[in-house]
Amino acid sequence: MYPVLGQQFIAGARSGLGEPRHQSFDAATGEALPWAFHQATLDEVGQAALAAKNAFGVYRQLSPVRRAEFLEAIAEELEALDQDFVAIVCRETALPTARIQGERLRTSNQMRLFAQALRRGDCLGARIDLALPDRQPAPRVDLRQYRIGVGPVAVFGASNFPLAFSTAGGDTASALAAGCPVVVKAHSGHMATAEQVGCAIERAAKRTGMPAGVFNMIFGEGVGADLVRHPAIQAVGFTGSLHGGNALSKIAAERAQPIPVFAEMSSINPVILLPDALAARGTTIAGELAASVVLGAGQFCTNPGLVIGIRGPAFSAFTEQLKEHLAGQAPQTLLNAGGLRSYEKGVNALRACPGVAHLVGAPQEGSKARAQLFKADLALLLEGHPLLQEEVFGPTTVLIEVADDAQLDQALRALRGQLTATLIGEPTDLLNYQWLVPLLEEKVGRILVNGYPTGVEVCDAMVHGGPYPATSDARGTSVGSLAIDRFLRPVCYQNYPDSLLPAALQNANPLGINRLVNGEWSRGSVGQVRD
Amino acid sequence: MYPVLGQQFIAGARSGLGEPRHQSFDAATGEALPWAFHQATLDEVGQAALAAKNAFGVYRQLSPVRRAEFLEAIAEELEALDQDFVAIVCRETALPTARIQGERLRTSNQMRLFAQALRRGDCLGARIDLALPDRQPAPRVDLRQYRIGVGPVAVFGASNFPLAFSTAGGDTASALAAGCPVVVKAHSGHMATAEQVGCAIERAAKRTGMPAGVFNMIFGEGVGADLVRHPAIQAVGFTGSLHGGNALSKIAAERAQPIPVFAEMSSINPVILLPDALAARGTTIAGELAASVVLGAGQFCTNPGLVIGIRGPAFSAFTEQLKEHLAGQAPQTLLNAGGLRSYEKGVNALRACPGVAHLVGAPQEGSKARAQLFKADLALLLEGHPLLQEEVFGPTTVLIEVADDAQLDQALRALRGQLTATLIGEPTDLLNYQWLVPLLEEKVGRILVNGYPTGVEVCDAMVHGGPYPATSDARGTSVGSLAIDRFLRPVCYQNYPDSLLPAALQNANPLGINRLVNGEWSRGSVGQVRD
Repeated sequence: MYPVLGQQFIAGARSGLGEPRHQSFDAATGEALPWAFHQATLDEVGQAALAAKNAFGVYRQLSPVRRAEFLEAIAEELEALDQDFVAIVCRETALPTARIQGERLRTSNQMRLFAQALRRGDCLGARIDLALPDRQPAPRVDLRQYRIGVGPVAVFGASNFPLAFSTAGGDTASALAAGCPVVVKAHSGHMATAEQVGCAIERAAKRTGMPAGVFNMIFGEGVGADLVRHPAIQAVGFTGSLHGGNALSKIAAERAQPIPVFAEMSSINPVILLPDALAARGTTIAGELAASVVLGAGQFCTNPGLVIGIRGPAFSAFTEQLKEHLAGQAPQTLLNAGGLRSYEKGVNALRACPGVAHLVGAPQEGSKARAQLFKADLALLLEGHPLLQEEVFGPTTVLIEVADDAQLDQALRALRGQLTATLIGEPTDLLNYQWLVPLLEEKVGRILVNGYPTGVEVCDAMVHGGPYPATSDARGTSVGSLAIDRFLRPVCYQNYPDSLLPAALQNANPLGINRLVNGEWSRGSVGQVRD
Repeated sequence: MYPVLGQQFIAGARSGLGEPRHQSFDAATGEALPWAFHQATLDEVGQAALAAKNAFGVYRQLSPVRRAEFLEAIAEELEALDQDFVAIVCRETALPTARIQGERLRTSNQMRLFAQALRRGDCLGARIDLALPDRQPAPRVDLRQYRIGVGPVAVFGASNFPLAFSTAGGDTASALAAGCPVVVKAHSGHMATAEQVGCAIERAAKRTGMPAGVFNMIFGEGVGADLVRHPAIQAVGFTGSLHGGNALSKIAAERAQPIPVFAEMSSINPVILLPDALAARGTTIAGELAASVVLGAGQFCTNPGLVIGIRGPAFSAFTEQLKEHLAGQAPQTLLNAGGLRSYEKGVNALRACPGVAHLVGAPQEGSKARAQLFKADLALLLEGHPLLQEEVFGPTTVLIEVADDAQLDQALRALRGQLTATLIGEPTDLLNYQWLVPLLEEKVGRILVNGYPTGVEVCDAMVHGGPYPATSDARGTSVGSLAIDRFLRPVCYQNYPDSLLPAALQNANPLGINRLVNGEWSRGSVGQVRD
C-alpha cells in the first residue's frame, strides 16, 4: 500500500493545482474514505496531453520487445500490490475480494497478452513489395509498409471493472502496445484504486526506462471533455454509457482535426432459448441463466438483458423456474449510489410501461439492488421501444415470448447492435435454427452457443465489440489482442535506403517477424540488398 | 461500346424515374455530348441502398474464391471495353488516350490485387483459441474470430481518375472484396464513362452468378447526401475535396447510427530538397520536379504543391531552373470547367496574398490551365495560413526557403497531415537528415526518397492515406490491398459446433489459409474435433 496523494499524474510527476474536492467513498456504507482528489485544472489537462505527445516520439520508436518488457513490468507491479490494495478496491466498489483478485489476474494477463502480440510482431503489419526494375510497361519501385501508433490516446475507464477496464485495463494496454502514450481520465467511482494502479504503472515505466509521459492520469469533473478536445490527443478509448460515449464521439467529430473514438456503450445481449434445449434441460438453463443475470449484481456489459423463447409448455415451465431462481436472490450492493439510482429508474420505467409485466422482484428500497424479472410484449420490441433496446445496468432481465420462427426472426431483426448474442440449443436445435447465425452475425460482435455472455476471455480470438450502439465503431474490439488495431496506422516507405528503414522493414528482418513479401508470407530476409 | 441509357443502376436493372437533366460534356470543347442522365429520385436512392442491403446477406457469405472470381471477371470486362469506350472517357475528361489506357490497366490490375488478397485469405483475419478445459483457475472455452463485411458501402469517385478512383476504382474493389455490396454515386464529370463501367461490372456480376444488387449506381445532384443518410448504408469511401469529405463525415456522424467514413481529401505533398542533392544534381531535380508538377495538368492528389529548400546558391540556382522549366510548359485542358474556375481562384488567391511572390506563369485566361510557380515566406507557413495548407488543384507549386535546419524543422512541424512527403537527397543528406524521418512519419502516409509523389503503385505495401486533412481516418488507405480493412469487422464464435462455423474457422481449414491458432500462425487443421 502506497500513500494516496490525490493528485494528477503528469509526465512522471504529480500535480495538485486544483481544489481537492473529490472524495473517495466506501461503496457499501457510503462512508467517506480518507482521501480527497484534486480537480485537474484545464492547464493540468493540457500538460497531461502534451506530456503524452512529448513521450510519443521516443516511445513509439522503441523496439516492440522494449514495449513488451514495459507491459510485462506493469503486470508484475500489479501482481505485487498487497492485500491493502485489494481491500481499497473492494471498499470503493463493493465488489468481493475473490472477484477483485480474479480481476487483477485478468488485468495482468491482459498486459502479457499484448506483450506476446508485440513479440510475435504481426501487429506491426510489415509488408514489402520489392522493386521490379524490369517490369513492363513501367518499373515498380521498392515499397514497404508497417504500422505505427496514431499518437496519444485518451482512456476512459468503466465503473464495473475497476482494474480490467480502467487505469491499466484493455484500452491502456492496447494503446501502450501500439506505441501510444495514454492520458487516463480516472473513474470517479474508484479514484484511490486508480491512483494505486497509476503508481504501479509509473514504477514499471521507471524500471524499464520508458520516457516520462508515457502514462498520465487526471481526476475531476468535466475534464474528460477537455481532454478529448485537446489537439495532442489522437484517439479515444471509452467504456461506459451510451450517453457518455455519444457525447465524446460528438466532441471528437467536431474538433478542428477529428479523431477516432472507440466507445463500448450499450448492449442487452439477447439469449435465444431454442425449443429442444428447453424441453431437454429447461430446469438447468433456468438456474444457469439466473446465475448469469445476477452475477456481479448484473453489472456487466455482457449481462443477458433479453431472453427470447418460443411459446409453449417448455417455455412456460422455464419461466416459472426462472422466477423461482430470481425470487430467491439476495439483494446486492451496487458499485455506487449513482448506479443504484439509475437501476431503480430503469426498473421503475419497466414496471410502469404498458405491455411489460413484472414477474418477480421486491420493490427497490434501501441501499441494495434486488433482482427483477419482466416479460414484455413482442410488439414493444418490434416497434423499437427504447426500454427494450437500452440496458438496465443491474440484476434484471426481460423475457420475450414469440409465437413461432417467423416472429423469432422479426424479433431479432428489430434488435439494434449488440456485444453478444447467445444460442441455447441441442444439436438438433442448432441444425434447425442454422438460419439464425447469419442474422446474428450482422447484429453482434460475439455469438455464443450453450454458454452465458458474462465472462469475457482475454485472448487473440475475442471480440468485445459490435455494431452501434454496442460500440461506436463495429470494426474494433476493446478486449483481446485485436484491440491494438484501433490505435495503429500504416506508413509506407518508398525507395528507402535499408539503413534508414525501421527494423521491422529492413532487408535482414532483424526482428524475425512474419512479413508479406511480394504477396507471400515470409519470416526470412529479403534478397535485394540496397543502400 | 454499349448504348448509354442515363439511368440509375438498381439491383441489376435500370431505372429513370427522375428528370433527364444532367448532360455529359466534352471537357476540352464544352460541347454537349449526346447523353443526358436522369436525376435519381429520393425513392431511387432508397431502392439502391436497399438493393445493396438485400444483396449483402448472400454476397458476404460467398466463399472468398467466388468473390475473387467476380473481381477477376470485372477486370476482364474492363479490359474488353473497346476504343469507343476509351474515346468517351477522353472526351469527358480531356485526358489523353495513353493515360486512359494506362489507367484502365491499373484499374483492372487493382481488381486482381484484391482477388489475390482474397485467395491468400489473410484479410479474413482468422484466429482460433482452442478450448483449455483443464486450465486453472478457470477453463477456457473454444473461441474463434474472423472478419466479415460491415455492410453496404457508399462510394464517391473522383473527377481526376475516371477509372481508377471511380465506379470500378479502389473503393469499389476493396468494398466488394470485403463482401460489401456498393452503391456508387457517379461523378458528374464523367457520367457516360461511369455508365459504361457500371455495365461492365453488371456483366461480370451476371456471368459469375453474383446476387442482384451487389452493384448499384445513382446519378444526380445532392443524391450523395441522401445516400449517406440512408440507414442501409454502413460505410463510406470518398475521394475528393476537403469540403466535400468533411460534409459527408458530418452527415455520417449525425445519423441515428453513426457510420465510418474514409475520405481522401486534401494534401499538398511537401518535397524537401536536401543540400548535397541540390548541389550535385539541382538541374536534373528541377526538370524532374517540373514534370511532376505539370503531370496530368497537376490534377493528382499527390501533386507536389510545396517545395522546401535551404537558402543558398544551390537553392537559388535550382529556383531559376525550375522557373525556366515551368515557364516553358504548354497550357493544359483541365478535367472540367469547374476545375478550371477553382484553379483560377486558387492561383489568384496566391497572387494576391502578401508574402507570396509570383515567380512564373502567364495570367490565367481562356480554357486551359497555365503552369504557375510561387514562392512564399516561411512565416505564412508557420502561422498556419490556409493558402499554404490547402491544395490548389492544378499545375502549380509553391517554394519555401528556410534559413537553416532549425527552420526546416519548424516548417515541417507547421504542416498538417499529408498523403506524402518526399526527400530528395544524396546518401550523405539522408544520413545528416535522418532526424526528418520520425517527424515525417507522424505527418504523412507515405515517405518517398528520391522519387516524385505522383504515380501511386497499386500493391500490398502502398499507403494512400495519412493524418487529417489528408484523410478523415489515418488508419486507412484507399490504394493497395490494405484498403479492404476499412470495410471489415471482426465477429467471434464461442463454443461453436464445427459444422456451423464459417469455412475460414473450421477445424479442417478447408480454405487452407494462414490462421493464428493459440497464438501461433498455422496453415494446418486444428486437432480438436468437436461437434
